[in-house]
Amino acid sequence: MLRTITGFSNPTVKFLRSLREKKHRKQEQRFLAEGLRLLTDARESGRLPEMLVMATKRESHPLLDALIADVSAAGGEVIEMDEDILAKVTGKDNPQAVAGVFAEFDTSLAQIDRNASPIWLVAQALRNPGNLGTMLRTGDAVGAGGLILIDDCADPFSVEAVRASMGAVFTQTIAQARWDEFHAWLRAGDGQLVAASLRDSTDYRTAPYARPCFLMVGNESRGLPEDYEKACDLRVHMPMLGRADSLNAAVAGAVLAYEALAHLRPKA
Amino acid sequence: MLRTITGFSNPTVKFLRSLREKKHRKQEQRFLAEGLRLLTDARESGRLPEMLVMATKRESHPLLDALIADVSAAGGEVIEMDEDILAKVTGKDNPQAVAGVFAEFDTSLAQIDRNASPIWLVAQALRNPGNLGTMLRTGDAVGAGGLILIDDCADPFSVEAVRASMGAVFTQTIAQARWDEFHAWLRAGDGQLVAASLRDSTDYRTAPYARPCFLMVGNESRGLPEDYEKACDLRVHMPMLGRADSLNAAVAGAVLAYEALAHLRPKA
Repeated sequence: MLRTITGFSNPTVKFLRSLREKKHRKQEQRFLAEGLRLLTDARESGRLPEMLVMATKRESHPLLDALIADVSAAGGEVIEMDEDILAKVTGKDNPQAVAGVFAEFDTSLAQIDRNASPIWLVAQALRNPGNLGTMLRTGDAVGAGGLILIDDCADPFSVEAVRASMGAVFTQTIAQARWDEFHAWLRAGDGQLVAASLRDSTDYRTAPYARPCFLMVGNESRGLPEDYEKACDLRVHMPMLGRADSLNAAVAGAVLAYEALAHLRPKA
Repeated sequence: MLRTITGFSNPTVKFLRSLREKKHRKQEQRFLAEGLRLLTDARESGRLPEMLVMATKRESHPLLDALIADVSAAGGEVIEMDEDILAKVTGKDNPQAVAGVFAEFDTSLAQIDRNASPIWLVAQALRNPGNLGTMLRTGDAVGAGGLILIDDCADPFSVEAVRASMGAVFTQTIAQARWDEFHAWLRAGDGQLVAASLRDSTDYRTAPYARPCFLMVGNESRGLPEDYEKACDLRVHMPMLGRADSLNAAVAGAVLAYEALAHLRPKA
């Protein structure tokens, strides 16, 4: 069912624009993903948008045709609009733009099957949505089960995080919890909690990683709280040979994740 | 010599604001760095701003006092201005803000002493200033000599890149060159050129890294051109166990750099 929108004041346009703000995403329990590649990643991961929007004047593309067919078949809405209206929705001038509205996923710890993957990434108070999306992307690459967000993190469903994830937001499990809740959940089952740390720590190359391994990085400015580090089973450090004493949070997570993968992956 | 600026239309205010744009940075051969921490990193690395600007009403801080003293002693300008004018310059509301104007550094290949470090990072057509700054930060951490920017990269002296570098812009050597120029320079001396690649490549954990090792990553969307990869001495790949076939460029560079470091660093 194709619908055409011709006016800026259309309620659907306002709804779409509102999803750029966290408050409205939480109210609506919906988020936006933009671009044919990202939407195709979603489709191939079994996630279809409830609503697909695109320019009335557009070039045909087989991947776009496949999206339109699948969204329609699933009972979703397919909407076209003038380029200038779409540009208001996506914040871009690109008339090739296509965007989709997705229902937010369950982000409870309860959905996590911890033994399904050797590695899980954990971020505490991670504030930068680009870093968050990059961690999702790294998680996909190392075969992690997902990303667990502790305390007040950036919104994983922000346009920036979704974009930086390069589609991994649709394949990685995402959970959100306070520290106490996460710690109680973790200790109720298997799991080694590992912190990237400078305190009382082991060389990250020779550390005894064990599966399921939960690799935790802290806030971009403050790192991890000391008591969180103390609650970890393992604290590891990477060489810091220069003036600085820390890495970008997403970089630290990735270096650690690839190291743990080399230890935990069955040898070929 | 302390100067006080009271008007928005002051030419120095216009000059400072203009440095947020690449065109003006190139004309003036100057760039901005903001924040007491960054400016202190610069000072401790032996780099002083030619001009230091801060709010007239400010809290005293020993690191700020040290900056003021050193900039004055070196013949630089120290300027104070009303908070609202400073906010226009820095684009921030924070009245604690302090900013410095630095002369751009020499970014020719000629300044590079390739045997001074076991590792050099190389980025080709890297477009995101955050990724660029993050690579500088990683370079500092792994003891790299610096970052060589090939073809059309983001500006390493943009406010975003300087900020993401966390001070490493002042400690890492930065060079800019076209590919042909870089390749000729590289082959005129020692150096192993290594690409992160999916083509015809070796496992990055067991690859024979050799110093000085030049680790190259490509553009965020397109990766490295095929002929650049072919010109490399070594092509290595990291496991990609998920749906995606690539990592964030700064992440790929960091995972590779830490691996090479483990191979090239003298054992303790």
